[in-house]
Amino acid sequence: MNRNPIRRIWAEGGAVINGWLSIANPFSAEIMASAGYDSVTIDTQHGAIGYEGMLAMLQAMRASGVAPMVRSTWLDPASIMKALDAGAWGVICPMVNSRADAERLVSYVRYPPGGCRSFGPTRANFALGSDYGAVADDEVLCFAMIETAEAMANLDEIVRTPGLDGVYVGPADLTLGLTGRRYRTGFDREESEMLEVIQRIIAAARAAGIRMGLHNGSAAYAARAIGWGCDLVTVSNDVRLLVQAAQDSVAEVRRFVKSGDAGAPATGSASY
Amino acid sequence: MNRNPIRRIWAEGGAVINGWLSIANPFSAEIMASAGYDSVTIDTQHGAIGYEGMLAMLQAMRASGVAPMVRSTWLDPASIMKALDAGAWGVICPMVNSRADAERLVSYVRYPPGGCRSFGPTRANFALGSDYGAVADDEVLCFAMIETAEAMANLDEIVRTPGLDGVYVGPADLTLGLTGRRYRTGFDREESEMLEVIQRIIAAARAAGIRMGLHNGSAAYAARAIGWGCDLVTVSNDVRLLVQAAQDSVAEVRRFVKSGDAGAPATGSASY
Amino acid sequence: MNRNPIRRIWAEGGAVINGWLSIANPFSAEIMASAGYDSVTIDTQHGAIGYEGMLAMLQAMRASGVAPMVRSTWLDPASIMKALDAGAWGVICPMVNSRADAERLVSYVRYPPGGCRSFGPTRANFALGSDYGAVADDEVLCFAMIETAEAMANLDEIVRTPGLDGVYVGPADLTLGLTGRRYRTGFDREESEMLEVIQRIIAAARAAGIRMGLHNGSAAYAARAIGWGCDLVTVSNDVRLLVQAAQDSVAEVRRFVKSGDAGAPATGSASY
Amino acid sequence: MNRNPIRRIWAEGGAVINGWLSIANPFSAEIMASAGYDSVTIDTQHGAIGYEGMLAMLQAMRASGVAPMVRSTWLDPASIMKALDAGAWGVICPMVNSRADAERLVSYVRYPPGGCRSFGPTRANFALGSDYGAVADDEVLCFAMIETAEAMANLDEIVRTPGLDGVYVGPADLTLGLTGRRYRTGFDREESEMLEVIQRIIAAARAAGIRMGLHNGSAAYAARAIGWGCDLVTVSNDVRLLVQAAQDSVAEVRRFVKSGDAGAPATGSASY
Amino acid sequence: MNRNPIRRIWAEGGAVINGWLSIANPFSAEIMASAGYDSVTIDTQHGAIGYEGMLAMLQAMRASGVAPMVRSTWLDPASIMKALDAGAWGVICPMVNSRADAERLVSYVRYPPGGCRSFGPTRANFALGSDYGAVADDEVLCFAMIETAEAMANLDEIVRTPGLDGVYVGPADLTLGLTGRRYRTGFDREESEMLEVIQRIIAAARAAGIRMGLHNGSAAYAARAIGWGCDLVTVSNDVRLLVQAAQDSVAEVRRFVKSGDAGAPATGSASY
Amino acid sequence: MNRNPIRRIWAEGGAVINGWLSIANPFSAEIMASAGYDSVTIDTQHGAIGYEGMLAMLQAMRASGVAPMVRSTWLDPASIMKALDAGAWGVICPMVNSRADAERLVSYVRYPPGGCRSFGPTRANFALGSDYGAVADDEVLCFAMIETAEAMANLDEIVRTPGLDGVYVGPADLTLGLTGRRYRTGFDREESEMLEVIQRIIAAARAAGIRMGLHNGSAAYAARAIGWGCDLVTVSNDVRLLVQAAQDSVAEVRRFVKSGDAGAPATGSASY
Repeated sequence: MNRNPIRRIWAEGGAVINGWLSIANPFSAEIMASAGYDSVTIDTQHGAIGYEGMLAMLQAMRASGVAPMVRSTWLDPASIMKALDAGAWGVICPMVNSRADAERLVSYVRYPPGGCRSFGPTRANFALGSDYGAVADDEVLCFAMIETAEAMANLDEIVRTPGLDGVYVGPADLTLGLTGRRYRTGFDREESEMLEVIQRIIAAARAAGIRMGLHNGSAAYAARAIGWGCDLVTVSNDVRLLVQAAQDSVAEVRRFVKSGDAGAPATGSASY
Repeated sequence: MNRNPIRRIWAEGGAVINGWLSIANPFSAEIMASAGYDSVTIDTQHGAIGYEGMLAMLQAMRASGVAPMVRSTWLDPASIMKALDAGAWGVICPMVNSRADAERLVSYVRYPPGGCRSFGPTRANFALGSDYGAVADDEVLCFAMIETAEAMANLDEIVRTPGLDGVYVGPADLTLGLTGRRYRTGFDREESEMLEVIQRIIAAARAAGIRMGLHNGSAAYAARAIGWGCDLVTVSNDVRLLVQAAQDSVAEVRRFVKSGDAGAPATGSASY
Repeated sequence: MNRNPIRRIWAEGGAVINGWLSIANPFSAEIMASAGYDSVTIDTQHGAIGYEGMLAMLQAMRASGVAPMVRSTWLDPASIMKALDAGAWGVICPMVNSRADAERLVSYVRYPPGGCRSFGPTRANFALGSDYGAVADDEVLCFAMIETAEAMANLDEIVRTPGLDGVYVGPADLTLGLTGRRYRTGFDREESEMLEVIQRIIAAARAAGIRMGLHNGSAAYAARAIGWGCDLVTVSNDVRLLVQAAQDSVAEVRRFVKSGDAGAPATGSASY
Repeated sequence: MNRNPIRRIWAEGGAVINGWLSIANPFSAEIMASAGYDSVTIDTQHGAIGYEGMLAMLQAMRASGVAPMVRSTWLDPASIMKALDAGAWGVICPMVNSRADAERLVSYVRYPPGGCRSFGPTRANFALGSDYGAVADDEVLCFAMIETAEAMANLDEIVRTPGLDGVYVGPADLTLGLTGRRYRTGFDREESEMLEVIQRIIAAARAAGIRMGLHNGSAAYAARAIGWGCDLVTVSNDVRLLVQAAQDSVAEVRRFVKSGDAGAPATGSASY
Repeated sequence: MNRNPIRRIWAEGGAVINGWLSIANPFSAEIMASAGYDSVTIDTQHGAIGYEGMLAMLQAMRASGVAPMVRSTWLDPASIMKALDAGAWGVICPMVNSRADAERLVSYVRYPPGGCRSFGPTRANFALGSDYGAVADDEVLCFAMIETAEAMANLDEIVRTPGLDGVYVGPADLTLGLTGRRYRTGFDREESEMLEVIQRIIAAARAAGIRMGLHNGSAAYAARAIGWGCDLVTVSNDVRLLVQAAQDSVAEVRRFVKSGDAGAPATGSASY
Repeated sequence: MNRNPIRRIWAEGGAVINGWLSIANPFSAEIMASAGYDSVTIDTQHGAIGYEGMLAMLQAMRASGVAPMVRSTWLDPASIMKALDAGAWGVICPMVNSRADAERLVSYVRYPPGGCRSFGPTRANFALGSDYGAVADDEVLCFAMIETAEAMANLDEIVRTPGLDGVYVGPADLTLGLTGRRYRTGFDREESEMLEVIQRIIAAARAAGIRMGLHNGSAAYAARAIGWGCDLVTVSNDVRLLVQAAQDSVAEVRRFVKSGDAGAPATGSASY
């Protein structure tokens, strides 16, 4: 009776809050999966993660109840099918630039006759239910990343690809692809040009009846994205969360020490 | 010409700000080692880290210039000597409860005639300098953890153990050991009873001419500890930093969404 | 609100059926944890499993709901405490031969004041509940292995060790220890001498109010052991199950081929 | 003087009994390689196995004398060539659907001028003999999987591809591809429609003078396949063998206990 | 301020001496990176190395200051981009046979608008400088391997591909591709036919203003290659160095023993 | 019918040439095991090797026919017994300083009644023969390291320990232990003081009827040791062989280039 939790949240009208993993470790995955996200995506494209790391992380997150997803290394059948067989409830595929790309993506995710996914859900049978083979085509999610000028030019065709569940926007690549080096790299775009692009993608997805996901660098921007109608928002990732928290922590000690506050007497305080 | 950075900071009158690793991953170690700490300790006692993980983390942190240390699994010669041979600049040893314990610890860390460390610094030769064998006895640091009632009873004898560089206080165990279940478990003690214990240890270390380190849960407490004269302060760890940052991030999105702020218009803002 | 499932089964009057893992792989652990056992023990003593393997297996089994246990490498504080911090609900400790051994074992498993376990349940906090620190002393199980002539001589003292939850019998070692090379090595003893020994241990455990576990090579013998009053029975292990199943499978093909049955026509059978 | 054992068996008129590995562990590979199979295939397509796992398994099986093969992740040059350089005696390639696919496959497996395999048998030089470079093109086996409707349509062209050693049939995918969801998924097909397809493939392979392999779920079916003329039969895999054996074992204990047989007295039996 | 050390050496008129790694181990990588090479290349094509191994090796070599490069598994976007994101300063791509191949290669290495590399330098940001995103297109090196008859036929077009930094010659494959089995396989070609081919490639690279690298089996040949104008020479690799040194060492003992020299008296020698 | 190859060589009057592994990699182990050594020892004391690495290396060396041995981390039952269960044919135990130490060592290596080794040769059953349990006490080798002043003082008692097969001398530690910092650290001692010590150990071993092994840094010294009557000589190790070979190789290129020899014309040589 295992079903994809993301589809349930959407059916209830909610937006999915997605975590993002770039460190290849099952314990950090377990920690992230306990933090309150609805889904957590293992990034095998830009994350420092190979197949072995991904598999161990899927195993470690299984108990959490969050929906595990994988960003595939590329629009590549082996990368996508191995992630699904390993127990991902969905795939986010980078660099889908045309209708033909999108059709290939769908074909890798669906079993015949809807696609050409090869049958052998070796771990999914254990992790996602013994009826996995019967329900996979209805439950597994398939996101195409829109992140190039070419993809934007083909947007309306892409979103209407039969079997595609959603588009996912990577603002760093999309900005680079559309505007070159004019703006800084990164997420949480504030240029009106880029904001319009994002709105256009939301509108196209909605018109085609599919979902829209956005990669965000901050909680505030993710919340705005939900307000715009995004169905799935990624909020930061393990690397950025850890590095920021560690830097802040060290800086705080150094600041305290410099300011002399560190010399506060250890006894006699009412707060003990 | 590689020398232990911790000894240099102390020679210059500074206090050492120490990071703490409990996730067995070289990339998270590399991230933590870039965050501004002076030293970073790999916890093979309570951390989810075995020998293989520790080794990879020592390798990944080498480029950072921070002083790598290891908390050994126990007062155990193999655990301690393998950490040193792998390239740690110091060892923090748990549960040193008596003068005899402290003498055993020192003997595991120093080569004959000062101790019985076996000679074979296989990776240290590469990571800490080809003259490692000649300088190790002067450079490697040896901390005994004071964390039980028995250790407190033997404190004055322990701190005067020849060859011991410092004591390190684990407030969670020490509180449990001295006061049982009277207080909450954890760091950053505020009970006057425990504050006095910490002051007593600082005083004993100072009287014996050795260093004192304290495990802290927050930057504020670490800064206070420096004010009290602590020579090395650990500030939080990778697990706590990550889980807190992730939970805060998710909670922030949910709060924004609930409050309706998420619906803020995407255009028209002055901040773009 | 996570509690040790083994204690619940016992409270309900049941016997625990325990699986046993000697292959260091999280996927085989996940498979075994899905097979219907009540608890599954990772054998870090004789299994081909080190710390890293054990940790990954504990993570992979978390979702299953079976109680994870670990056989420690030895009566060694680091081995025992690291297994518990990693999320085991119990420890089976080999070669407990005297009351002093049993007291050391208990001391490694319980926090002060009942023992000297060091506080730092790094993964247990995530895997076994955030209240782990508060409940661990009541929930974690501590088994002493009775497997030598010396242990038999000290049996009555061992079983009365305060804080010990049970004894666990390894028939291979116990037979070797009591009778040398007189009988074959292995489990499922049928010699009246050894059967009497097992009965004596069951009686001693019962008299002391603690539990008794037995290592078995077959389902039939495990069932008999339950009939004798054993509270926990291990049935075979991953290595033996796999090698037997594979050998049987190959032998069956070769037998079919030899017998000529393999030539059965492919069509025309009613069973299609 | 190492030569491919599979070719020797065929030269002697025998059929090859093949094991199948989906668990990424060198010890389970070593166990399986000791069970009596002639060859053992590591499944990097649907198995939970990446490159690192495959390599360690090839190393662990080397001593056994069984012929190691690899199912590649896809019709992908890197996957195929890396498996061969790592010491596989053959490759089973999924989803070969056309003559062009089959020609590409052959080209990845043979050195120039017969193909475009790049020269660098780094581990094969050690594992398969220092004359590997000279004999590889004659010894390495190249199987194309026939598992789609498209492949069936192109069967006669595929089997006549120069350099192809055999076809291998995956009944789960082939049934799905030819009949959609009409029948259950899985191996050991009994539908007359599918039995005819298998006979057709056997006949086509034979007519083209190449070998035919079949994936089977049971020893009985594998034996029938040999009777039909299959040259290589796979019998079950490590995952299925382990899960079935474990489930049977647990069920047997529970059945004994329920039936009351478990209460048999421990003494007094004639069988002691 | 991290910049690619290879470009600096070239700017100063030097030739780059490159090490080569085929063993997937961070410690052997650390050892090799300390041996005096200017750059060290991790071979993920023919080396027994997957993604996880490559990543750990890049981490372990970071402290050395040598320029880390990766030979990609194939002309494959995922393989190339993951190596760069993991912190390689350059990519050597096998089997670049046409101008179209070379253009694809460049596109995978450069960010838009010069190429289609996807933005996400997760580890490179830490290992190669926080300004990596800004400098990568100027610093990262892109080598196309010339190793087939087809590549030789298209040489002049390949070397003039905009954005290509150099060609790299694999003499084993190139000899096989041009001359079949006429000559032995391997490096350090002495056939006049092959020497002319190498000279032709050097000339073509020079004419196009790009760099030329050569794979060599010996120091002597590498030195000759520098004399011919090669800009980067690889000298042997870890596997060959280790196996040769070990075989020589064993042979030397056996020779000593056989010759009777081994019986030399242990005392009384002037050399003590 | 697998028997310990070392005992066979000794029975034939030969001396054993032993390789030494400090890099945790199964492929480098496979390479070293192919180089001509009679036995190869995995150093888990000073080598950068933990349990997981050791196990994989034992598996990878199995096919070679060399006798695998392990230097244990310490005189520790878990380290010793786990190495034996994993398939080592012998153990070299560091820091055996007294008769009591030697007796403990023997007890960890032999099953009852000769010792207290616990029965469970999980991998040894597969790697060293299914009759392993029956032959282990006769075949497994047990070496005590003599490497301290204390051990020298107790030498005659140590060598006469029943069940001990041999002593093994670590010259680096022994020199440090006996003479402090008077001489350089390392192997291949030439001081008459140390030469006499070695002769004394050889004589003591011979008088007691046990074997003597010596750790050497060079082939020449190893050969001399055989001449002195040593039964097993270790010659260098993987780390030293690799670093020396790599440094020599780089230095040779640089020397060629500096000398101008590198400019030798590529054509016209008689050696083609």
